[in-house]
Amino acid sequence: MTSSLLSRGISRRVLLATLAALPALSVPLLPVSVRAQAAAPATALPSWNDGAARQSILSFVAAVTREGSPDFVPLPQRIATFDNDGTLWVEQPMYTQLVFALDRVKALAPMHPEWKDKQPFKAALEGDLKALVGSGERGLLQLITVTHAGMTTEEFETIVKDWLAKARHPRFNRPYTDLVYQPMIELLAYLRANGFKTFIVSGGGVEFMRPWSEPVYGVPPEQVVGSTIKTRFQMRGDVPVLFRLPDIDFIDDKAGKPVGINEFIGRRPIAAFGNSDGDLQMLQWATKAGDRRRLGLIVHHTDAEREYAYDRKSPIGRLDIALDAANANGWTLVDMKNDWNQIFAFESGH
Amino acid sequence: MTSSLLSRGISRRVLLATLAALPALSVPLLPVSVRAQAAAPATALPSWNDGAARQSILSFVAAVTREGSPDFVPLPQRIATFDNDGTLWVEQPMYTQLVFALDRVKALAPMHPEWKDKQPFKAALEGDLKALVGSGERGLLQLITVTHAGMTTEEFETIVKDWLAKARHPRFNRPYTDLVYQPMIELLAYLRANGFKTFIVSGGGVEFMRPWSEPVYGVPPEQVVGSTIKTRFQMRGDVPVLFRLPDIDFIDDKAGKPVGINEFIGRRPIAAFGNSDGDLQMLQWATKAGDRRRLGLIVHHTDAEREYAYDRKSPIGRLDIALDAANANGWTLVDMKNDWNQIFAFESGH
Repeated sequence: MTSSLLSRGISRRVLLATLAALPALSVPLLPVSVRAQAAAPATALPSWNDGAARQSILSFVAAVTREGSPDFVPLPQRIATFDNDGTLWVEQPMYTQLVFALDRVKALAPMHPEWKDKQPFKAALEGDLKALVGSGERGLLQLITVTHAGMTTEEFETIVKDWLAKARHPRFNRPYTDLVYQPMIELLAYLRANGFKTFIVSGGGVEFMRPWSEPVYGVPPEQVVGSTIKTRFQMRGDVPVLFRLPDIDFIDDKAGKPVGINEFIGRRPIAAFGNSDGDLQMLQWATKAGDRRRLGLIVHHTDAEREYAYDRKSPIGRLDIALDAANANGWTLVDMKNDWNQIFAFESGH
Repeated sequence: MTSSLLSRGISRRVLLATLAALPALSVPLLPVSVRAQAAAPATALPSWNDGAARQSILSFVAAVTREGSPDFVPLPQRIATFDNDGTLWVEQPMYTQLVFALDRVKALAPMHPEWKDKQPFKAALEGDLKALVGSGERGLLQLITVTHAGMTTEEFETIVKDWLAKARHPRFNRPYTDLVYQPMIELLAYLRANGFKTFIVSGGGVEFMRPWSEPVYGVPPEQVVGSTIKTRFQMRGDVPVLFRLPDIDFIDDKAGKPVGINEFIGRRPIAAFGNSDGDLQMLQWATKAGDRRRLGLIVHHTDAEREYAYDRKSPIGRLDIALDAANANGWTLVDMKNDWNQIFAFESGH
């Protein structure tokens, strides 16, 4: 059913779009070492089997961090950007933020009795995704703006945190924030230990990710780039608030990713990590920069048993053009089934 | 003449707007200490005379960095935001970016013979700012988009760097990047030494500031928030570029500042520094957050001899509503003449 919803090519752009997210959070972060302290390659990335993918990472990091190396990159320029859905956490069978939006419609329904007979809300309430798709881009936008706007940024942050605390993934029956890939968490930490600044660059709403990116990924809110909706500053008496408006501001997907990287970060990454055609342009922007050494990496979902297997024809996380581009450009292709000896932290470890 | 140009209230919003700026830069940065290492208060901020303004800074920093203090703020939440024009560098007699725009019109004029008879270009070329104002918001927008768009982000970065290398301030006859306030440079460094992450939040174009914010202020490009214009990603053959379009994307001024802070940083600052009514909402957003201790500071230009003296009626950097708000809200008011014993690094130091 997600298939039909997403196969119309509406979703990624429209849905994740509005999935503009949340304000700052007060989660004390593990102190991040700015100084390069290369982990010993032998013990680095323990959830990665010692194959070509792992080696390509170690080799790249060694080259750009070794002073005197022709590939050496000074600390401030060590920028790495990561897609989120399907690259850092599970995106099947439905983008988490879309699950959130549908749950929000249900939660808000008692205050909107008219929704029972009005599309696209009727379809959302009945789980009739076919009808939802029938409501078109306009219907989906309505859905997103109703669930993601009309409150202050602080109120939205609370809504997201409360939802994440209760929601469970239909297959794994765990909080969505448990469904992050352990090998990628290790990769984020390994890059940071080598002086990289790690950013998330996602089609998802920035304020849907910021409330938990720091405790879960070690990526602080100011290093999360994503789709945004417009906000308006207001003084309510003596209290300043930012009110979330039902207007898409920026869609950080596909060709929008380099735009977002330039606007939010203002530096070109030297390494980029993705899993779908939505990441193609980000990988092009990061890696095709003259003769300088760069790392592009694509997570290929090949493990139906432990996670999911999908690529060229998947309505979610379609990996088709970018799969060919990986071969043509020498990007690292991660074969999830063979390259990762552990996928989630909750599995029995090694 | 600047007066007349700016007194129509057109400039700040329109001009600085488009003044959307430049991509990443390759300037190796002084390693920034993340760990809090409080400078000894007696020797901290040497260009500040030991008055109420300096004391308010020292007292605030001591309170939020002392573990166990009721005002203690964990490292990741120590976010400080600084306006640029008039707060970190000179904004008189004309915003530097406007000087840049007018110089660009002159540089481009040989390729546009028709400009000699066409407003607003004719006015810009003749230095007839009265006629320029007469061309209205639309004319000024035309001027900005012609000078700031129609090239790649990398090309624009080069243009800005080349211009800054040659341009001289009309009164001080020095590069504009020399005209940064030494006490504020010390303040930026002092905050960073105490675990703060320092951001610029300016009405100016983000890509006009990013090429030099790191060497001059120690603020890396990814910590510069400003006005933006739209860009479009393109593959030119095998080379990815971001092309600057003649469309304003976001104006980071007045009520736009909290919006920009939320969108780019995603955390609420605990300290904010400005000098004009354009900073009012940023200071409100940063300081009016319940009972928690916050620092708001306004630089009041009171020194016509060493710099400039202006406030309530100035067409540039007007400080009127925010001056009253400073008193009402307990924000620190810096009396430049009496609080700063040195203004520029090139003056004979102490």
